[in-house]
Amino acid sequence: MTQTPVLGVAVIGAGYWGPNLARNFAASPDWNLVAICDLDEARARSLAGRVGGVDVVGSVDELLTRPDVDAVAIATPARTHYPLAMEALRAGKHVVVEKPIADSVAAAQEMVDEASSRGLVLMTDHTFCYTPAVVKIRELITSGELGDILFVDSVRINLGLVQPDVDVFWDLAPHDLSILDFVLPGGLAVESVAAHGADPIGAGKACVGHLVLPLAGGALASVHVNWLSPTKVRTITIGGSRKTLIWDDLNPIQRLTVFDRGVSLENASAEMLGRAEQSAAKVSYRLGDTWSPALPEREALGAMVAELAAAIREKRAPLTDGEAGLRVLSVLERASGVLEGSKA
Amino acid sequence: MTQTPVLGVAVIGAGYWGPNLARNFAASPDWNLVAICDLDEARARSLAGRVGGVDVVGSVDELLTRPDVDAVAIATPARTHYPLAMEALRAGKHVVVEKPIADSVAAAQEMVDEASSRGLVLMTDHTFCYTPAVVKIRELITSGELGDILFVDSVRINLGLVQPDVDVFWDLAPHDLSILDFVLPGGLAVESVAAHGADPIGAGKACVGHLVLPLAGGALASVHVNWLSPTKVRTITIGGSRKTLIWDDLNPIQRLTVFDRGVSLENASAEMLGRAEQSAAKVSYRLGDTWSPALPEREALGAMVAELAAAIREKRAPLTDGEAGLRVLSVLERASGVLEGSKA
Amino acid sequence: MTQTPVLGVAVIGAGYWGPNLARNFAASPDWNLVAICDLDEARARSLAGRVGGVDVVGSVDELLTRPDVDAVAIATPARTHYPLAMEALRAGKHVVVEKPIADSVAAAQEMVDEASSRGLVLMTDHTFCYTPAVVKIRELITSGELGDILFVDSVRINLGLVQPDVDVFWDLAPHDLSILDFVLPGGLAVESVAAHGADPIGAGKACVGHLVLPLAGGALASVHVNWLSPTKVRTITIGGSRKTLIWDDLNPIQRLTVFDRGVSLENASAEMLGRAEQSAAKVSYRLGDTWSPALPEREALGAMVAELAAAIREKRAPLTDGEAGLRVLSVLERASGVLEGSKA
Amino acid sequence: MTQTPVLGVAVIGAGYWGPNLARNFAASPDWNLVAICDLDEARARSLAGRVGGVDVVGSVDELLTRPDVDAVAIATPARTHYPLAMEALRAGKHVVVEKPIADSVAAAQEMVDEASSRGLVLMTDHTFCYTPAVVKIRELITSGELGDILFVDSVRINLGLVQPDVDVFWDLAPHDLSILDFVLPGGLAVESVAAHGADPIGAGKACVGHLVLPLAGGALASVHVNWLSPTKVRTITIGGSRKTLIWDDLNPIQRLTVFDRGVSLENASAEMLGRAEQSAAKVSYRLGDTWSPALPEREALGAMVAELAAAIREKRAPLTDGEAGLRVLSVLERASGVLEGSKA
Repeated sequence: MTQTPVLGVAVIGAGYWGPNLARNFAASPDWNLVAICDLDEARARSLAGRVGGVDVVGSVDELLTRPDVDAVAIATPARTHYPLAMEALRAGKHVVVEKPIADSVAAAQEMVDEASSRGLVLMTDHTFCYTPAVVKIRELITSGELGDILFVDSVRINLGLVQPDVDVFWDLAPHDLSILDFVLPGGLAVESVAAHGADPIGAGKACVGHLVLPLAGGALASVHVNWLSPTKVRTITIGGSRKTLIWDDLNPIQRLTVFDRGVSLENASAEMLGRAEQSAAKVSYRLGDTWSPALPEREALGAMVAELAAAIREKRAPLTDGEAGLRVLSVLERASGVLEGSKA
Repeated sequence: MTQTPVLGVAVIGAGYWGPNLARNFAASPDWNLVAICDLDEARARSLAGRVGGVDVVGSVDELLTRPDVDAVAIATPARTHYPLAMEALRAGKHVVVEKPIADSVAAAQEMVDEASSRGLVLMTDHTFCYTPAVVKIRELITSGELGDILFVDSVRINLGLVQPDVDVFWDLAPHDLSILDFVLPGGLAVESVAAHGADPIGAGKACVGHLVLPLAGGALASVHVNWLSPTKVRTITIGGSRKTLIWDDLNPIQRLTVFDRGVSLENASAEMLGRAEQSAAKVSYRLGDTWSPALPEREALGAMVAELAAAIREKRAPLTDGEAGLRVLSVLERASGVLEGSKA
Repeated sequence: MTQTPVLGVAVIGAGYWGPNLARNFAASPDWNLVAICDLDEARARSLAGRVGGVDVVGSVDELLTRPDVDAVAIATPARTHYPLAMEALRAGKHVVVEKPIADSVAAAQEMVDEASSRGLVLMTDHTFCYTPAVVKIRELITSGELGDILFVDSVRINLGLVQPDVDVFWDLAPHDLSILDFVLPGGLAVESVAAHGADPIGAGKACVGHLVLPLAGGALASVHVNWLSPTKVRTITIGGSRKTLIWDDLNPIQRLTVFDRGVSLENASAEMLGRAEQSAAKVSYRLGDTWSPALPEREALGAMVAELAAAIREKRAPLTDGEAGLRVLSVLERASGVLEGSKA
Repeated sequence: MTQTPVLGVAVIGAGYWGPNLARNFAASPDWNLVAICDLDEARARSLAGRVGGVDVVGSVDELLTRPDVDAVAIATPARTHYPLAMEALRAGKHVVVEKPIADSVAAAQEMVDEASSRGLVLMTDHTFCYTPAVVKIRELITSGELGDILFVDSVRINLGLVQPDVDVFWDLAPHDLSILDFVLPGGLAVESVAAHGADPIGAGKACVGHLVLPLAGGALASVHVNWLSPTKVRTITIGGSRKTLIWDDLNPIQRLTVFDRGVSLENASAEMLGRAEQSAAKVSYRLGDTWSPALPEREALGAMVAELAAAIREKRAPLTDGEAGLRVLSVLERASGVLEGSKA
């Protein structure tokens, strides 16, 4: 086998998510984790020790001058993503950034443009997209096994921690939206965004929410998020003209189920009929087999860091690139606008 | 015990639902089923034979002149509910009518007014409200066991027959709405109606739909209906400030589950705080016992005909009166208006 | 198509099961239901009316002289199966008999011999064997898809009516045993029968029971029956060297599931190794896809009466012949012997 | 509060289970972990480092002379439990030993006698007995809430690693047996042991097994263990005369469910009736509520080390004492004898 040169990476931010990134970069054959950078040097030092004694760098400026750093992974609070990513890109570094990619669509667009003009990789860490189940869902849709997408229902509810800084949409829906962006052909290209939220406990922000997103071709996606549910549900149903799948992330025995069931009109004739006649056209039902593919056991972040390395080497966009982060952010921002508008 | 005189009833319409009504009236100690009336006399005769040989009457006019008919049960197509009910009320008969109560809110309002001015009972046959599970849910809410209602989510999806005359909202949501009207304190008093529908198979009508209904006190109800789902789901979750319940109508082992779990702010202080401070107030979680009450085995329609008799005798409104039918119809009509508007 | 002459059948016994037989014979294109015979003539007349007005015959002797009766279906108490079946066979009639085929193995053996010597069909009505799920299980095993059978576990427990005349083994296990006899290659050929029962409520008979049956090739079958269980379970797991299946008769969404999972030794080498070495041999695991075949909706008894007609026409043994009834009865009789012996 | 002197403990064996014991002793306010002892000093040193730098002692003799060691925890291979425990007891140390307590009933009995004669605590580490669910089950039985025990069914099956040194009974059944010993009034006092095993893959030892254990009062316990099952099941059902419970260890949402359902004879009369009359006596059914108690989140081993400390201080037997280990071992040994006998 030919030997591929190992890339150097530094992790900025040693708080909640940084350690996961550092551990996976350290374990990857593609990467050489060279430094941890955090304003809190003690926290950086502790993390550096746990991943085998890499350098601790107190200043981002200093970090970005290092020639052994090919890429930086940014795991800091959302409002700092834009300045840090821009500085890194301007220093010629590839960047992977925690979601949300930035705190405004405008900022995210600048980041995407900057990376593009410099020929650098800008990746959004949509970790869920690298789980074996979501990778399989993407395959099933891309290969045409599901047919045309008819509807999508995503439910992410549980008895959740009411967050101090974000509402239930910004806390939970990024997971659903990033997955939809990843698996739908053409990504999350929504025509409009409807959002309905409620704050029945007086928390000062939405604790229960519904997003409804019309998709291309007459399909409809809905995302239901709720911090007040007594039971935990994590399911995504994707209905297609040929088959329908249900992903139940809390069912370890049968995480992904594909149903060869559906309703269809007799299409040949439908094209030649007017609206009224169509409703009288023959509807057919399929009640075929159910199938649950075996999924490998694999840590999603490991696949994410491998994809970042591959994108850099092959000079291509990664699967979850800056555009993907921008599309997800755009839906969330429009949802917030709708909610804000409905209060006025 | 004192002897209660038995009431006489006739069933108008011997099609899909009429036989169920006739069978339950015939089996009831409160009622004497005296006649079946249908334009199709052969169908009427067949039904009359199966319930013990009652009279067959070909004309409604003739039926309404009979002094042994105290009440009529109308199980004919929706567009005929209004003229038949009005004629029966004017003839001094009590009326129970299939849902939807009429084909327009205006017509339903006239029916309610007519019955009221004549002191007659007008009942809507919201059969689901008389199932043991729904009766129990009403009790749990009325008694305060759930506390204030925070959110309601109703899901009624399956691989369904695409109906020739109605969309998925009018086909499936009446069940959910009539149940919500029955169990919520004050009935289905919604401030506004949001509706989102899709017709991804080109059926000429919505096959997938979402209703979102803000309730009093900041709560939010949602109803999800879908004819294209590969799996059948019939659940209603009602979240309260004290407890939360889930009704799963397809789980015969544990149809109704009450969770002593929830999220709450420290209320005492919350009243004295502004919005911003509230969000920082202490949130508390309860993770208590789960309980599933035993439910009697009982046919809902049997309880419905008993309630009709009791309402007539006690000269009071039945549990599912004309107003209830009117409230449900009003939500559906407003939903259709929203959908129509969004197409324009 | 060629026209097949319709066969004539009479049902003896109009009690619990007879009406189901009569209804299915009456609805079958293969059969002409000609008479109902019961000591209780009123009961016979009532049943005859419900299936389209066939003859009522008070005496079996008279019935058996009729030339339009090709076969009789015996649905009377178990102790009468032997005399009735023998009389019918001697009169040249084909016979299908409710399970258990007789009340002793000796009597059943005589019935089998009598039918055989006369070239008549003797069938046992093992209805469960004609359900779509069990037919599919048989196919999966016969085709080799499961590989060699390694173990079978059947669980049939619920809060059951304590029967006045039989214990829990005779009440519930015939279902499991008749299914095993039907699906296992070579039928229920057990080497020995272990039975453990308990009567913890003082009912005077076993209410909880376990059967353990060593099968050919080192496999082991167990049957667990229980009248005292708070939950109802109806599952059969059949483990094979290639795949394993679970039949869950109470799960309408996924009644039959086939798992491409299992454990196996490296067989090539195992043959050449001694016992001790084998235990150190490499064990391999498969964790493949899960699959749930679509099953047609079909009444089992309809398939049973069709099989009876086909066996008569093709002059062959039916799928559930007298030998099958004999094998099931033999296991039950041996189990009772073991239980009786353990008390002594 | 009064100050309780902290006890000193050493862990012997730093292999699979030793680290869990060491971690829990180190975290306990009751204990001072003073040393790790293992023949493999590097392994001992590594573990000692991870729990805060305690002493490493290469020889058991040396360890037992230390006055700061009040108790030793033995987590070495089963055949060494007896010599190590006896030496420790003779040195005046309290002992907790991994299960199985010893490799023969005779050896275990000597250990129990030695501890008893010296007034020392001998505990068996039946970890499962300290999980919140099992503690709750014990409470429900002890308080009489379940009534008299009628039957117990334990199922512990999965696609398991075929073990090199033990069969499926010795690998899996100790969990079930130790739990039954803990929760049943009077412990695992079985009258006889029936065991049925099979080795259908030629592994040289039983891979599928059934234990059937008659209990006092006519009840029956069964334990089903299987290494070849495609699905993982961990359930124990305990049927009582008043209520029945099901523990499903793999259902995090509803781990423990109590059913107020059951069958009973009319007892008042039953006492005065003979066996035959009893069977005709009236049977009554209860179909009451279902209830699932909230269970605290707690690590079982933490409760185990607290119980050891409490037993030493209060000079009493711990909940899972040497006798408990002896009873479990006795059932396993008798089961092996039965299996061995059936081969002969």
